[in-house]
Amino acid sequence: MGNIFGHLFRITTWGESHGGAVGVVVDGCPSQLVLDVSAIQADLDRRRPGQSHLTTPRQESDQVEILSGVFEGQTLGTPISMLVWNKDARPSSYEHLKDTYRPSHADYTYQQKFGIRNWQGGGRSSARETVGRVAAGAIAKQILHQQRNLEIVAYVQQIHAIKTEVDTGSVTQEQVEASLVRCPDTKASEEMVLRIDQARHDGDSLGGIVGAVARGVPVGLGEPVFDKLKADLAKAMMSLPATMGFTIGSGFDSVSMTGIEHNDPFYNDQGNIRTRTNHSGGTQGGISNGENIVLQVAFKPTATIRRDQETIDVFGNPVTLSARGRHDPCVLPRAIPIVEAMMALVLVDHYLRQQAKTLP
Amino acid sequence: MGNIFGHLFRITTWGESHGGAVGVVVDGCPSQLVLDVSAIQADLDRRRPGQSHLTTPRQESDQVEILSGVFEGQTLGTPISMLVWNKDARPSSYEHLKDTYRPSHADYTYQQKFGIRNWQGGGRSSARETVGRVAAGAIAKQILHQQRNLEIVAYVQQIHAIKTEVDTGSVTQEQVEASLVRCPDTKASEEMVLRIDQARHDGDSLGGIVGAVARGVPVGLGEPVFDKLKADLAKAMMSLPATMGFTIGSGFDSVSMTGIEHNDPFYNDQGNIRTRTNHSGGTQGGISNGENIVLQVAFKPTATIRRDQETIDVFGNPVTLSARGRHDPCVLPRAIPIVEAMMALVLVDHYLRQQAKTLP
Amino acid sequence: MGNIFGHLFRITTWGESHGGAVGVVVDGCPSQLVLDVSAIQADLDRRRPGQSHLTTPRQESDQVEILSGVFEGQTLGTPISMLVWNKDARPSSYEHLKDTYRPSHADYTYQQKFGIRNWQGGGRSSARETVGRVAAGAIAKQILHQQRNLEIVAYVQQIHAIKTEVDTGSVTQEQVEASLVRCPDTKASEEMVLRIDQARHDGDSLGGIVGAVARGVPVGLGEPVFDKLKADLAKAMMSLPATMGFTIGSGFDSVSMTGIEHNDPFYNDQGNIRTRTNHSGGTQGGISNGENIVLQVAFKPTATIRRDQETIDVFGNPVTLSARGRHDPCVLPRAIPIVEAMMALVLVDHYLRQQAKTLP
Amino acid sequence: MGNIFGHLFRITTWGESHGGAVGVVVDGCPSQLVLDVSAIQADLDRRRPGQSHLTTPRQESDQVEILSGVFEGQTLGTPISMLVWNKDARPSSYEHLKDTYRPSHADYTYQQKFGIRNWQGGGRSSARETVGRVAAGAIAKQILHQQRNLEIVAYVQQIHAIKTEVDTGSVTQEQVEASLVRCPDTKASEEMVLRIDQARHDGDSLGGIVGAVARGVPVGLGEPVFDKLKADLAKAMMSLPATMGFTIGSGFDSVSMTGIEHNDPFYNDQGNIRTRTNHSGGTQGGISNGENIVLQVAFKPTATIRRDQETIDVFGNPVTLSARGRHDPCVLPRAIPIVEAMMALVLVDHYLRQQAKTLP
Repeated sequence: MGNIFGHLFRITTWGESHGGAVGVVVDGCPSQLVLDVSAIQADLDRRRPGQSHLTTPRQESDQVEILSGVFEGQTLGTPISMLVWNKDARPSSYEHLKDTYRPSHADYTYQQKFGIRNWQGGGRSSARETVGRVAAGAIAKQILHQQRNLEIVAYVQQIHAIKTEVDTGSVTQEQVEASLVRCPDTKASEEMVLRIDQARHDGDSLGGIVGAVARGVPVGLGEPVFDKLKADLAKAMMSLPATMGFTIGSGFDSVSMTGIEHNDPFYNDQGNIRTRTNHSGGTQGGISNGENIVLQVAFKPTATIRRDQETIDVFGNPVTLSARGRHDPCVLPRAIPIVEAMMALVLVDHYLRQQAKTLP
Repeated sequence: MGNIFGHLFRITTWGESHGGAVGVVVDGCPSQLVLDVSAIQADLDRRRPGQSHLTTPRQESDQVEILSGVFEGQTLGTPISMLVWNKDARPSSYEHLKDTYRPSHADYTYQQKFGIRNWQGGGRSSARETVGRVAAGAIAKQILHQQRNLEIVAYVQQIHAIKTEVDTGSVTQEQVEASLVRCPDTKASEEMVLRIDQARHDGDSLGGIVGAVARGVPVGLGEPVFDKLKADLAKAMMSLPATMGFTIGSGFDSVSMTGIEHNDPFYNDQGNIRTRTNHSGGTQGGISNGENIVLQVAFKPTATIRRDQETIDVFGNPVTLSARGRHDPCVLPRAIPIVEAMMALVLVDHYLRQQAKTLP
Repeated sequence: MGNIFGHLFRITTWGESHGGAVGVVVDGCPSQLVLDVSAIQADLDRRRPGQSHLTTPRQESDQVEILSGVFEGQTLGTPISMLVWNKDARPSSYEHLKDTYRPSHADYTYQQKFGIRNWQGGGRSSARETVGRVAAGAIAKQILHQQRNLEIVAYVQQIHAIKTEVDTGSVTQEQVEASLVRCPDTKASEEMVLRIDQARHDGDSLGGIVGAVARGVPVGLGEPVFDKLKADLAKAMMSLPATMGFTIGSGFDSVSMTGIEHNDPFYNDQGNIRTRTNHSGGTQGGISNGENIVLQVAFKPTATIRRDQETIDVFGNPVTLSARGRHDPCVLPRAIPIVEAMMALVLVDHYLRQQAKTLP
Repeated sequence: MGNIFGHLFRITTWGESHGGAVGVVVDGCPSQLVLDVSAIQADLDRRRPGQSHLTTPRQESDQVEILSGVFEGQTLGTPISMLVWNKDARPSSYEHLKDTYRPSHADYTYQQKFGIRNWQGGGRSSARETVGRVAAGAIAKQILHQQRNLEIVAYVQQIHAIKTEVDTGSVTQEQVEASLVRCPDTKASEEMVLRIDQARHDGDSLGGIVGAVARGVPVGLGEPVFDKLKADLAKAMMSLPATMGFTIGSGFDSVSMTGIEHNDPFYNDQGNIRTRTNHSGGTQGGISNGENIVLQVAFKPTATIRRDQETIDVFGNPVTLSARGRHDPCVLPRAIPIVEAMMALVLVDHYLRQQAKTLP
C-alpha cells in the first residue's frame, strides 16, 4: 500500500535502489497526447546524480524505456509503463550496513515495519524511487503545457544559511539550469557552490529550501474540503524523502501579519479578475484563483554523511558507524525536477477532475 | 468529490454553514468499541464559537446526534452517522455579501468553479464544516487511546508576534485548557489575550502557529512512498481552512543545520530503541519510529475583518466592502480540537492499515 | 469499510433498519443541477413496503430530508446529505431473534465478523439500507436524463416458474407501474399475483429475475480493464441483498451459441454505427457501444418465511425457529427502483469519468 | 483509469498485446512471504496459448521477470513489479484490420472512446492483458495457502451444449489438469475435445461455463454493503474479456426454488457451525460463512472466427471481413488459471481488510 498517487491521473511507482529496475505505471493519461519522450529523458537527466562535481559521483545512465500505452507517438489512453534499469548496483559496498541502523535513515523503521529490508543502499526509501515520479511528472507537464500553456519552474532558494529572493513571476527554467546548484541568483549560487564544497570536505551535509511556481493555472482547480489544492500539494511534497516542511503563499510569514495586511484585494484587470497581492499563493478555499501557485519545501541536510556516528546495530548493541565512501553533501539541486514533477502530478489530476465536473 | 478522507477509517463530511445541518459519516470504525459520546460532545464544545469573550459571539449549541452504527453503547462496525443541526442561520445578515467577493475568502473561487455558491455565511468553505471532522476525530482518539494509550495534545504556540516554546514531552490538555487562548504558557497566554482584544478593537485579525504532539505512537505507522505519515499529516492539516504551512520535527529550522547536527543518533534505552534527539519529529522514511510525533501548522490571520476593503462584485465592478457586524479576531484557540482531530484521523487510519499487514 | 460506492459520483450509505435513520451522502454531484426532489420521493415511494397487499405490511413513510448541497433548488457541487427517519421500529417484535441465527440471513456472519450485531430486524443487512441507494440513484437518473435523455427501465421478468419476455426496446415505466408486481406482461403479471398470494398463504417465499434496460447510453462509457461497464454493473447488482446472479446481453444463453451466431454485425444506419443484433448487451471490450444496455439479476426467494425451521442459537445449540409474524413473500416488485438506482449510479459515474478524459 | 484492482492488495496491470511487454505491479503484498516464483511461472504456463493442439498456435514463452519487491526470496512489503516481454509481435498479420471494426471485438468502442487504438492484435483489450492478473493472482494464492491452507480450484463445466456436474467439495487441480480442456469429467472432456475440433474445422468458436470453488475460506470475509464478497467476485469475473454472466451458489436456479427449499439450515458439526446445504454459495449478507465459495462464469463464444463476416470500416462503409489465419476456437481451458487468479485476488484483499478490523 501507499505506492499509488492521484485520483484520475494515477501513478504507481515501484523499485528499490538496488533491485532490477525502478519504474512507474501511469493510469489515466488521456489519449491522443503527442508524447515527447526526449522531454521525459531530459527531466530524468536533471534528476540523475553525477551531473556536476557537486553531486554524488555514482553514475546511473537512467535511460527510460516505455513499454506500453504509446502507439505511433501518441498515448493510447491505456496504462503507460516506464522503467529504468539499475546499472550501478554494488551490494558489496553496503555490506557493512547490513546489521547497522544508520541515524536518520529509514533502516530501523523499515525493519520494524516489514520485518525485513533490502539493506543494499536504501532499498525503497532511496531517492532512486523518485525516478518513476519524474518520468510520470514529465508527462503531466506536457499535458498541462499543451492544454493550458501552464508552466512550472522550481528553483533552489536557500542552502544552509545562504538564501535569496526569487521573482516568481519571471523566473525561468533557463535561469535555473544556468546555475550549478539550480539557484537563479548568480551571486547566491556561487556562495552555495563554495558552501557545498566545504561540506563535502567536512564530510558533512546541507539542507535548504526549494521554491516552485506554477504560472497559467486555470481558476477552479482543487476539490473542497479534503482535496484542496494546497492539501494535495502538501502531501505531494511531504511524500518526498528528506522533506520537513511545506508552505504555500506567505506561509509562516503570514503569522506575523494582520488580516488587513494579509488579505488579497480583488480588482478587475481589463476583464480579468486578479488580486493585487498574492499572499494566498494562488488558492482560496482550496481552489486555484488564477494567480500563480507559489510554494516552498524545506529539505533537511542529507542523512548520509562521511563522519563517524554513534548508533546501534540490529541486535540493539551500540556501534560506531564509520565514515567511509563518498557522499552527496546536498541533494537540493537534484530535487528541482522532482518538485516540479510532483507539482505537475497534482495539477494535472485536478485539471482532469475539473473536466469531469463540467456538464455541457 | 473531495469530501472523503482516509483509506480504512474513512470519513465523509457534509453540510454548509447555513443549510439544515452539518455532519459526518465514519466508515471503517472497528466494531465493539465502547463509545464515549460525551467525549465527542466535549470536543465539539471546544470547537464551538462563543466559548469566551475572545471568540465569535455567534451561538451554536452544536449538540451531536448519532443516527447509526452504535448499538447498546458499542460500535457495530457499520457506518456511524453523526449530525449537528444548524440553529443560528441568519441569511439576512449575509444579504449584503450576495454579490460581493470578499478578499481572501472562497467566494470568488467557489463561484468560478461551481457556477453557484451559497453566499449565506461561507457555505461549504466555512469553518463550520469542521464539526464533522471533530466528531469523527473524537472517535479516532478513543480508539488510539483505548488500544495504545496514545495521547494527542495540540496547543497554541504563537499568535501574531507572541510566541512560546512548549515542552512536547510533558504538555497536557489540562494545561492547554486552562488558558483562554489554549496556550500552555501562562505569561504568553496573557499577552495573547491582550493582543487579540486589541485586534478586535482594531477590527483586524491575527494568525499564528498551532503545535501538536502525539505520544505513545507505535513504531511502524506510515506507508511508503506516497502515504508517508508526514505526507498524510501534511494533507490533513493543509486541508483545514486558513492554513498556510506545515512542518514536522525541526521543520524549516532543519535548513540551517548540517547533517552531523541534525541526524538523530540511535541508542538502546534499556531494551527500547530510542533516538537521543528528535529532529525527525517521530518519523523516518515516512514511518513512525516510536518517538513523539511533533508538528506545527501555520494559520493566516482570518479573512473576515471589520474594516473597509476594496474588492469587486460578481459583475466585475470595483466596490468597497464595508466594515460591519462582529468578527472573530483569532480562530487559533478554536482550531486546537480540530488539529487534534485531524492528527487522530491520520494515525488511526495508519494504525488500521498496519494491522492489515500483520500476517500471523 | 465497504459503504462507499463510485469513483467520481461517490455515495456513502449509512443506517440500520432500526436505528435512528437511514441515509446517504452524495459526493461528486455536479453543480447547477436543477433538482427535482419529488422525483427522489417518488422512487422512495416505489421502494417502500406496504404499497399493495402483496408486499410487507410494515408501514414506513420514508419521507426524504435534504440537509445539504442544495441551494435555491440547485445543487451546489458540495455533498448532498439525505436522510429518512426510521419510524416503525419495534425492537420487541425481534426479541425472540436475539439469540438465534436465522437460516440464510446475515445474523451468523455479522456476529462472527463484528462480534456484535443489531438483532433488531436485520440491522445493516436489512433491505432498508437501500433507501440511501434509491435516493442517490434518483439524482443520478436526473443527471443522465437531463444531459443525455438517457432512460432506465427495470421490470420483473420472472417470479418462481412464471416468466415472460420483455421487449427491451420499447418497455416503459408506465407499463411496469401498471402492474401490481411490476411485470409489464399483463397475463404473466396476473399469474405472478396469484403465485405470490399462494406463497403468502403457505408461509413461503419466492425469488425471480429482474431485467433492466438503459436506452440512449452514449458510446464510450466504461474503463478497461477492471472498471469495465459490465464489471461495475455486476458489482452494483451483486451488492444488493438476495442477489445470486448477474448477466449482460445474452448472458448464459451465449454459452450454447457459436461465434458466427453470437457476433453482432456492425452496419451503418444512416450515419449511426449500429449492430444488427445486440447479444453483447450494449458493451464491447467493457465500453458502451451505443446499443441498449440490457441486464438481468437473479434474486433468491426471501430468507424470511413463516415456517418452522431448524437452526442453531448463538451458543451452538440446535433450536427451532418458529413461524410467526407476517412476511413479504416476494421482494421483486420493490427491487425495481433499487435496480434502476444502481444502474443509474454506475452510468453516471462512468459518464463523469468519460468527461474527465476529454481534452479540448 | 480503470487499471487498478483491489483496496489493500492492489494490482495495476499494464501492456498491450503487441507493445513491448505486459506486466503488473502488486502494491500491498505483506512482507516476509517466502515467494515461490516457479508457482507464478506455472500459472502463466497454464494461461499461455499453444499448450495443446486445441488452443491457439501462437507461441508466447511468457517468462516472468520480477523487477522489485523481493529480496533473498522473500517479499519486502514494497511493490512487486513483474513483466513478461511480448515476443510474438507480428504487426503485419494485423495490417488488414487497421481500418476494419471486427464484430463483437473492442475495435469500435476503443476507437470511439480514445480516438486512437492499437490495431495490432487487440491492444489492451486482448486476453494477453490477463498475464498480469495471473502473475499477481499466483502471489495471492500463495498467501491464502500459506496463511489459511485455502485452496482454489477452477474447472470447465460446460462447453457449448456439453456440460457436466462437478463435485465442488472434492475436485482437485490434478483432475482438472489431467484433461486437455480442463474439465474434470473424463467423458465430458472427450466430447468437448471433439466439439472443439469440429468448431476449428468450421472456423467457428464456442463459449461455455467455468466453475470455481474456494475451500477453507475463513468466516468473516466481505464488507457490507457495497464490497460484499459476492459483489467483488462478480466484478472480478465480469472484468475478464468475453464474460457474459456470473452466479454464486444456486445462481439462477434459485429463482425456481421457494424459501423453504432454498434456505440453508445451520447445524453444529462437532463445534463447527455449518449449513446443511450450500445454496448460498458460501456467503450470507455478503460475508463468507465458512462454507465453500462456489461460483460460475459464462463466457461467450470467442469473437475471433475464421469465417467471412459483414461489418463496416472506420469510414462507415460496409465491408466483408474475410476469413483468414488461424484462430482459437475455445478459450475456456486457458481461462481456468485466470478465473483462479481473480478469485484469489478478491479473497486476499478481503483477508487483509479483515485483519485491519481486528483490534487486539
